[in-house]
Parts: sequence; C-alpha cells; structure tokens
Amino acid sequence: MTRVALAFDLGGTELRAALVDGEGRLLAFASVPTLAREGVMAVVGQIEMLAETVRREVPDAVVAGVGIGAPGPLDPKAGIVLGAPTLSGWHDVPLAGILSDRFGLPVGLENDANAAALGEWCFGAGRGANSLVFVTVSTGIGGGAIADRRIIHGRRGLAAEIGHMTITDTGDRCFCGAVGCFEAVASGTALGRRATAMTAAGDGSRLRVLSCDAAVTGRDVVDAARAGDPMALSLLAEEARWLGIGFTNLLHLYSPDVIVMGGGISNGFDLLSETIEATIRSRAMPAYRDVPVVPAQLGRHAGLIGVASLILRDEGEAMPPATEADLDHQPGATPAGPKEAIHG
Amino acid sequence: MTRVALAFDLGGTELRAALVDGEGRLLAFASVPTLAREGVMAVVGQIEMLAETVRREVPDAVVAGVGIGAPGPLDPKAGIVLGAPTLSGWHDVPLAGILSDRFGLPVGLENDANAAALGEWCFGAGRGANSLVFVTVSTGIGGGAIADRRIIHGRRGLAAEIGHMTITDTGDRCFCGAVGCFEAVASGTALGRRATAMTAAGDGSRLRVLSCDAAVTGRDVVDAARAGDPMALSLLAEEARWLGIGFTNLLHLYSPDVIVMGGGISNGFDLLSETIEATIRSRAMPAYRDVPVVPAQLGRHAGLIGVASLILRDEGEAMPPATEADLDHQPGATPAGPKEAIHG
Repeated sequence: MTRVALAFDLGGTELRAALVDGEGRLLAFASVPTLAREGVMAVVGQIEMLAETVRREVPDAVVAGVGIGAPGPLDPKAGIVLGAPTLSGWHDVPLAGILSDRFGLPVGLENDANAAALGEWCFGAGRGANSLVFVTVSTGIGGGAIADRRIIHGRRGLAAEIGHMTITDTGDRCFCGAVGCFEAVASGTALGRRATAMTAAGDGSRLRVLSCDAAVTGRDVVDAARAGDPMALSLLAEEARWLGIGFTNLLHLYSPDVIVMGGGISNGFDLLSETIEATIRSRAMPAYRDVPVVPAQLGRHAGLIGVASLILRDEGEAMPPATEADLDHQPGATPAGPKEAIHG
Repeated sequence: MTRVALAFDLGGTELRAALVDGEGRLLAFASVPTLAREGVMAVVGQIEMLAETVRREVPDAVVAGVGIGAPGPLDPKAGIVLGAPTLSGWHDVPLAGILSDRFGLPVGLENDANAAALGEWCFGAGRGANSLVFVTVSTGIGGGAIADRRIIHGRRGLAAEIGHMTITDTGDRCFCGAVGCFEAVASGTALGRRATAMTAAGDGSRLRVLSCDAAVTGRDVVDAARAGDPMALSLLAEEARWLGIGFTNLLHLYSPDVIVMGGGISNGFDLLSETIEATIRSRAMPAYRDVPVVPAQLGRHAGLIGVASLILRDEGEAMPPATEADLDHQPGATPAGPKEAIHG
C-alpha cells in the first residue's frame, strides 16, 4: 500500500490529474481539456472523473488528501479561487471546500506559480534550500517565493507577482498598462517580438525560416541560437541581460538560497546562464553575487508535484519538515510538508 | 512589578538603550556615542553600562530578556553580526551569545531595518496587519518585510534590501555601483542632489536660503515645499513619483496589507502621499491599488520597540500571537511575540 496525494493542476485550457507519492513521483496521470466556459460544477465533475481514472490505475494506493493548483488570484488559506481570467464565471469559488465535501479528504489549494515553486523546492532544483525563488519565463513571467521554509503569500495570496515589477523605463507597454515591467521586456513574448522586429517575412533569416515566415517566437530564437545563428545569439544575450536585472532584484528583495528558472525559455538556459550570471555579478551587492541560478527540473509536472507536497507529510529529507504553526486554524488537519493551509 | 524587555539599538554613531513594556512604551531611556572604533568588547561594556542606567530608573521592573538591533548584514537565527561598515572590526561577532552570557537572559538580535518594521507592526502604524512592508527613506532607503506574520529573513538575513532594487535606467550611479537603484533616485540624498543641481549658491532661492547656500538636503526641500515654494513642490512631486514606482514593486512582490513609510523624508509624508497614491493607482495591477501607504508612527524609537517585541510575549491584541515553530531550535526559550530566534 502506497500513500499518495491526489493532485490536480487546473489550467484554463487543460485539467491534469495525478497520483503522486511521497517522493514526488507520478504513479498515474490523466488529463482533459478544461470545460472552462461551462462553469464551476462542470469542472468539478471533470475533477471527479479524472480522480476515478487515476485511482483505478493504482488501486492499492491510499489517498491521503487532495492538492489542487489553480490560476490566481486565489486565497490559499480560505481555499477560495477569487477569479481567474482564464476561467469564466469563477468568482469567489470555495474550491477547497467543494472538493473536501466530494472526496471526504483534506484539500490543499495553491496558485499555480506557487505550486510549481513548492514542487521544485520539495523535489526539484531547489531541494534543501531554506529560501528559494521560482521564476517561470514563457508567454509571461510569473513565480513564487519561499522564504525561511514558507511560501510567501501576503495579502489575498498575491505576493510574488514577479512579472510586474518595474525594472526599466524602456520597452513596449505591458498588457497590465505599465511600462518597464520585467515581463514586458524579458518574457518569451518580448523575446519573440524583438526577433520579429529585427527580421521580415521572406528575408531568408534562420529565425524566419524556423517561424515559417510568421511572427518569431521565443522558442524559435532559442532554437536558432542553439544552431549558432548570430542574430539569435545576440537576442539571447539581450534576453539574458534583462533576466539578470530582474533576478538581481529578486536576490535583493527575497534573499533566496537559489533562483530556479522554469518555463519555455528555460529550454535555452545553457545559452542564457553565462550572461545572466555576469549581469548579476555586475549589479548585485557583493553578499548576493554567489547565489546560484539553476534550471527547473520538474518541467510541466512541477505544479502537480507541488500541490501533492501540501498533503504528503514529511517522511524524508527531500520534504521540508512540517510545523504545527500553520495548521492552527485547522485543528485536526494532517500536518503537511510545506506549511500551507489544508481544508477538510 | 512590570515585565519589560531591555532593548538596545546599536548604531554606528549612537548606542541607545531602553526598558520597554508589553505595550511598547519606553519606561526608561539612555544613550551614548558608540565606541565604534574601539572594538567589540568596548561596545559590550557600553551596553552593560547603559543596562545598569536604565534598570536603575525602574528598579521594580522584571527584565524578561534582551533585544538588540544592529546594522546588517547579520544572522538573526544564529545571533551573529556578520560585519557592518559602520562598526570597524565587527566580523562574525556572536553578539547574542555574548550578551546572553553577560545578562543571563534570552537575547533576540535583529537588523535595524527589520527591528523598525517589527516595532511599527506590533505597536505603530502597522498594528493588526498580517503582512507589512516598512520602508525608511532618509540618506538611503532600507526596510523590512513581514509576510504572513513573520519577518522575511532569507539567506543570511539579507532579504528586503529594498533600496537596491532596480526601477529605472536613469539617474546617478548608486554607491553600490549599479544604475537605477530605488535608493539612487528616491532617497533623501537623491532629492537633495536634484535640488542642489537646480539651484546655485547665492541665487536667493528659498532652497538655498534654507541650506545657507550649502548643498540642499532632502529636509530643506520638504521645509521649502511646506512653505509653498514652487520649485520644492515640483521636486517633491518627482520624489513622490519615484517612491510610488518603488512602492508599486513592493506591492507586487510582497503583497502587504500596508506600506509604512519612515525615515527623515517621511516628515513630508502629507506633501508626498497624493502623488505616491496616484502613481500606485496608475502602475499597480488592480488587485493591489487599494493598499494603504501610511507614515510611520514610532519615529526613531521604532527599532528599540521592535527588538523589545522579540522578547515580550503576546499578552494583548497589539502583539501578534506567538507560535512555537520558530523556537524549535531553541528548546525552552520563552515564546516571543513576533517569531524571531531567541538566544539564551
């Protein structure tokens, strides 16, 4: 009999489920396109269905609880999804309570970026750190910060909105309306946009060949750079410089033991890291300069593994020890690994 | 018999001591110029002398422990001053252990910015908040962040180095070597420098009259603005805009319930707040726009009151409840109010 968590990653396009064991391994996995426009109960129905699917695969597993990652903003303590742009009609949904009723199990809810941070911390590139910042660089930039062995939540669980810190006066206006957001200059979208502006359809450049003469994506830039394309390498150097500036801020503000970089652009981590580190060395105060920046290890399953860690209690070194403190408001709840609220 | 903490604020120029009661009141106070160049044991001697002085003033007070704020970087958990530029010869000094031996009492050590944050949180402008950022704007910019009722320490206690987050590409080079640090554009020093550059000795401007034709200080600008001087008002508007940009970053990164602004420039808070708030409203994402920015309440004693709160246990609403969790490594230590390490 294996003790597992039933883990869900609720995205706007895909709903994923897994059984995750105490060592962060996926014993079963299933996914469906999210019925994002059909309201809360349709999605709850999908969750129940996926639960049956994965439980059937490992019939002797003992499910200790349910962890679910969902788009923010959400209130992890109250277990409420406050309202996500990608889930229509989701406003103040007490998702943890609903699932606790359905499954009769304790439920932990966390936003997707924090969930990935937890996963990398417990079982990935950030194992053993007391403090960690996870940064995902893809279409946008998001992240989660763990300080002194706890996720930083802040008011309404809204901390670590890393992509919208101002780091410059230049660049295109961010979708949020401001100028100079980290995301607006350093996301994969920004990288692709710069590459698109430097090339033209039909110009025969490697970037446009890779993009089939459509707009160039950040991933095209990484692929072209890996093949040695000089323009792509120069674009990646600029990308790495922006990442280095943003990461330097994260060092000064959170003082992590390690920065873990995930997301699509981290596929080019090996091509970026030298300039990222040089930028940090030239801009960070001396005490922060030797903090490592490392690529994420868990890929797209980081969030599933992270929410599982909300449930599975500490039984080994990889899992940070629990404290009772954060469960004060939930007397009788199973002590979790990382110190998040458990509902049930 | 009153239960008190013996509180010290160890600055590079002044060493201050107080007896602080459970409601954050100073029952006795004394200070001396710090013997900063005469080594650790000279300063320890001063600490013992000041302790006698303040204890003599309230002979029936029962001292529950010692709290001390010191310049960073320092390791609050280990109780070690790592090395402060203003204290020559202080490298890896186990100050908490030394004082615990001398006084036979538990000792809490915290860096001065975090100490002030704790003071404002427990007894000042941040009472009742779960999460708070304290920003001191004077010669430089420093601060402390409390998230989910705990000071964020991070690696080596170095978190919340707020003054050295990059927020722009412009402005004078920061003393740290980088360009665009919050401190380099928004400190009182930066404000004074802009005012100095806009005026000339002998030009008869109110700013130069106030500065006696020397370099204009940030405080001169506040004073001139309060008297209605248009140039000073314009300089304060620019100052407030920079503060608003930095504070917006702090909202996105820490998601506090409140930002508390202290330091010399906060004397002009009433003249700054409208533009600070307008800047936040125009730059922060919607969910963060209604977070209040308020002036500090405890003035220069915030740090003394803050370190006292490390010692005095929760006995009222004003003091955040203690948890056992953070004292795990110090079995038998008195549970403190805010959850900091206690040595003794």
